[in-house]
Amino acid sequence: MATFAPDTRIRSALAPGAIVDRLIPVVGEDHVLHRPEQLAPYECDGLSAYRSVPLAVVLPGSVEEVCEVMRVCSENGVPVVARGAGTGLSGGALPYEHGILLVLSRFNRILSIDPDNRLAVVQPGVRNLAISEAVSNLGLYYAPDPSSQIACSIGGNVAENAGGVHCLKYGLTVHNILALKVVTVDGELIEVGGPRLDSPGYDLLALMTGSEGLLGVVVEVTVRLLPKPASARALLASFDDVESAGRAVADIISAGVLPAGLEMMDNPSIRATEDFVHAGYPVDAAAILICELDGTAEEVDDQIVQVRDVLAKAGAAQVRLSNDEAERIRFWSGRKNAFPAVGRISPDYYCIDGTIPRRALGSILSEISRLSEEYGLAVANVFHAGDGNLHPLILYDANKPGEFERTETLGGRILEACVAAGGTITGEHGVGVEKINQMCVLFGDAELEQFHRVKAAFDPEGLLNPGKAVPTLARCAEFNAMHVHGGQVPFPDIERF
Amino acid sequence: MATFAPDTRIRSALAPGAIVDRLIPVVGEDHVLHRPEQLAPYECDGLSAYRSVPLAVVLPGSVEEVCEVMRVCSENGVPVVARGAGTGLSGGALPYEHGILLVLSRFNRILSIDPDNRLAVVQPGVRNLAISEAVSNLGLYYAPDPSSQIACSIGGNVAENAGGVHCLKYGLTVHNILALKVVTVDGELIEVGGPRLDSPGYDLLALMTGSEGLLGVVVEVTVRLLPKPASARALLASFDDVESAGRAVADIISAGVLPAGLEMMDNPSIRATEDFVHAGYPVDAAAILICELDGTAEEVDDQIVQVRDVLAKAGAAQVRLSNDEAERIRFWSGRKNAFPAVGRISPDYYCIDGTIPRRALGSILSEISRLSEEYGLAVANVFHAGDGNLHPLILYDANKPGEFERTETLGGRILEACVAAGGTITGEHGVGVEKINQMCVLFGDAELEQFHRVKAAFDPEGLLNPGKAVPTLARCAEFNAMHVHGGQVPFPDIERF
Repeated sequence: MATFAPDTRIRSALAPGAIVDRLIPVVGEDHVLHRPEQLAPYECDGLSAYRSVPLAVVLPGSVEEVCEVMRVCSENGVPVVARGAGTGLSGGALPYEHGILLVLSRFNRILSIDPDNRLAVVQPGVRNLAISEAVSNLGLYYAPDPSSQIACSIGGNVAENAGGVHCLKYGLTVHNILALKVVTVDGELIEVGGPRLDSPGYDLLALMTGSEGLLGVVVEVTVRLLPKPASARALLASFDDVESAGRAVADIISAGVLPAGLEMMDNPSIRATEDFVHAGYPVDAAAILICELDGTAEEVDDQIVQVRDVLAKAGAAQVRLSNDEAERIRFWSGRKNAFPAVGRISPDYYCIDGTIPRRALGSILSEISRLSEEYGLAVANVFHAGDGNLHPLILYDANKPGEFERTETLGGRILEACVAAGGTITGEHGVGVEKINQMCVLFGDAELEQFHRVKAAFDPEGLLNPGKAVPTLARCAEFNAMHVHGGQVPFPDIERF
Repeated sequence: MATFAPDTRIRSALAPGAIVDRLIPVVGEDHVLHRPEQLAPYECDGLSAYRSVPLAVVLPGSVEEVCEVMRVCSENGVPVVARGAGTGLSGGALPYEHGILLVLSRFNRILSIDPDNRLAVVQPGVRNLAISEAVSNLGLYYAPDPSSQIACSIGGNVAENAGGVHCLKYGLTVHNILALKVVTVDGELIEVGGPRLDSPGYDLLALMTGSEGLLGVVVEVTVRLLPKPASARALLASFDDVESAGRAVADIISAGVLPAGLEMMDNPSIRATEDFVHAGYPVDAAAILICELDGTAEEVDDQIVQVRDVLAKAGAAQVRLSNDEAERIRFWSGRKNAFPAVGRISPDYYCIDGTIPRRALGSILSEISRLSEEYGLAVANVFHAGDGNLHPLILYDANKPGEFERTETLGGRILEACVAAGGTITGEHGVGVEKINQMCVLFGDAELEQFHRVKAAFDPEGLLNPGKAVPTLARCAEFNAMHVHGGQVPFPDIERF
């Protein structure tokens, strides 16, 4: 198991017992957890390879309580990590051992739904899917749909700027929220954004979104709702080689089609998935694409013709069209269960999250294959291909000494290959603790310094989620000094876009 | 003529002559303007009611020169106002009399076009329309289309987060750019954003966009390009009363149609426009709507049926459909020339820019009509109705004593009515100097303080565009103290949404 070495050893000015004594009057005895058996369930988020036990877990029940908790903590220099459902995959909600974990699970109410203006006001602990369920009878839905949508909460979606299968067409969280209420580090309540398209003043809404809990605590979210499309159909295409599948993805987008979803799976993912859910995937294919088209029935028909044409030209071996809603859902059932399916064939797996230009899909797959051999670890690839977002799953066994460390190194190399191809180190999972070193590859000192100045504008003492998301310059100096690949230009074979 | 009283009397540590002497070696003698006749053309931007003469106008020719100019200015405490084409309507590029004006008109090159990844890298002085023209042969275009698009430059679009007729469907500038190169106040070059959907670290791209030149100087913009729609047609509907037209707008959106543009003009605007360009508008109508639909031919046909149905139910007196591209352009010709058309019927006009929820269109029009009578000034209304963005044009005569001041007060009252209806004080023109007082109505001290902390994270000495966009707390305290409407709740008759 990995342990996280935070950059800043910020320590509470209060002893753990004193913190608990100060917080019980604020939120009530039942809502301050401090005994070891109470703390254990909170020691990690969805990135369970990293674990850390906080001084206490605090579960406030109102905005006023959050404000007061933050006042107590900032007056006493107590670090605070905010957490929603804890499904994040980059360790963004990993507790800080010298601070408290602020859990927002009691903020689970939908406060209002406004179909005229197509928005809903929800508390941060509301689950992503619960929003769409609550407005379904109005013909509306909330578009971002991370794979964890049944469990993940909207506050965490905001913190990580979550995406999902449909973000190719409908955008990330930042494109689907309108306003936030945020408690600042010193316990003040501010409102950012607003219900209209534009909002004057600096765009603090976008700045807060994806800031991974480093700038404030989100206590209310106004989300945009979209009308459910009249029609949706999916195409399932198989390919004999991954390069052709990659080329087809780029060609579909170049043809001017904007699919609602455009996903790619390679052979190891197809096999693992088919064994698990029997979605009807061709197990001998080198790769499959799932392309969903939505809109009016006429529009969907028109797009199907266009996409079929592109797939044929790109050399698809077989193309199937969903004939009804049950078949469309069946096409997706494999993709949606790809992660647990891979979990069945390997003791452990590590989900990487990088982004590349679509045209580089073929060459990055070759590079991942080469790195997979170099490190002696199998990789199954599941891609949000339409927006170039990769989720290579590295298969490993945590019980074999050194295998997790090798997995981490391989993951880092894959992310660096993404950067070398003109991409970046995250698509939708955030940086958290997982990718903090790769931030040093992506950004120079000038950008990192500007990030730290922005952080200080919200949290001058650095009490919010210490050591996550943005590395210190010292950390990067150390990382970059250690990280020379034999004096070579890294990845000479990767095409740059 | 109005004069602008900036909040902060920041003064250069160098005498004007010394500044000129320091900058000539950086950009060359031809590119430092300092004689009164050289400075006069730069004394205002598109909001010509406000004028101010800078110490010098500097026209750098390279990123390196911008860095060096900023280093000289920050080392000597010289305030800097950056400016593009100067077409802005809120005074964001109004010079600061104790500082220099940094004009980016020499940055007028398109650096690269990448059709595969649908993006272009351009210098900030490139005109908005020039981008679409340059990529037209590739079947692509740049979506945001402010009315000034023939003249305005992309750097200014970024600074003000410009919109346009098509932003209802395609978003504002912030939704259509991918990356920026920015020179910081102390002359460092940083890159924000990136070519992929998500970018790790804080979202400085969104933060810079719409920051009105207060955080840095944009020296390069990576814009997103979209494929030109296969088909576009426009409906022109006339109404006998404005309330029905307003209701039709909300109903079209509620029906799940997302028009490419949805514009509204009231009778005074229709008459002024028809006299000028003969677009074939019905001069007796209380209001017209222009609704453009784009996409594949089938999709457009389908949407036309839906919109026609909504228009009929909302009580449209007459509905016409453009039969060919020439007629579609003719329908738009009136709307696109509405501002100069109004300019012909009044010695002067003042364009207001506010936003309201769509459902409030009817009641805000009644309120504007009431305020128009109260202040004795005619108002012609031109609305980006689909996204609730209002452009009331107040007709006045600057040569009549007191009339401009009355116009300004009326404009402020209209904006406050927008806020009271659940809207905001800008749609796309920015705050600049024009709406600085209304920011005090919209935001509380906690939000304003956070804005100032963010500003300080980029520009601790406040040298960039002093006194614009975000008012000081002292200014707001003064404004709010003066601004009590007889102890009444303002706008008791406005419906809140």
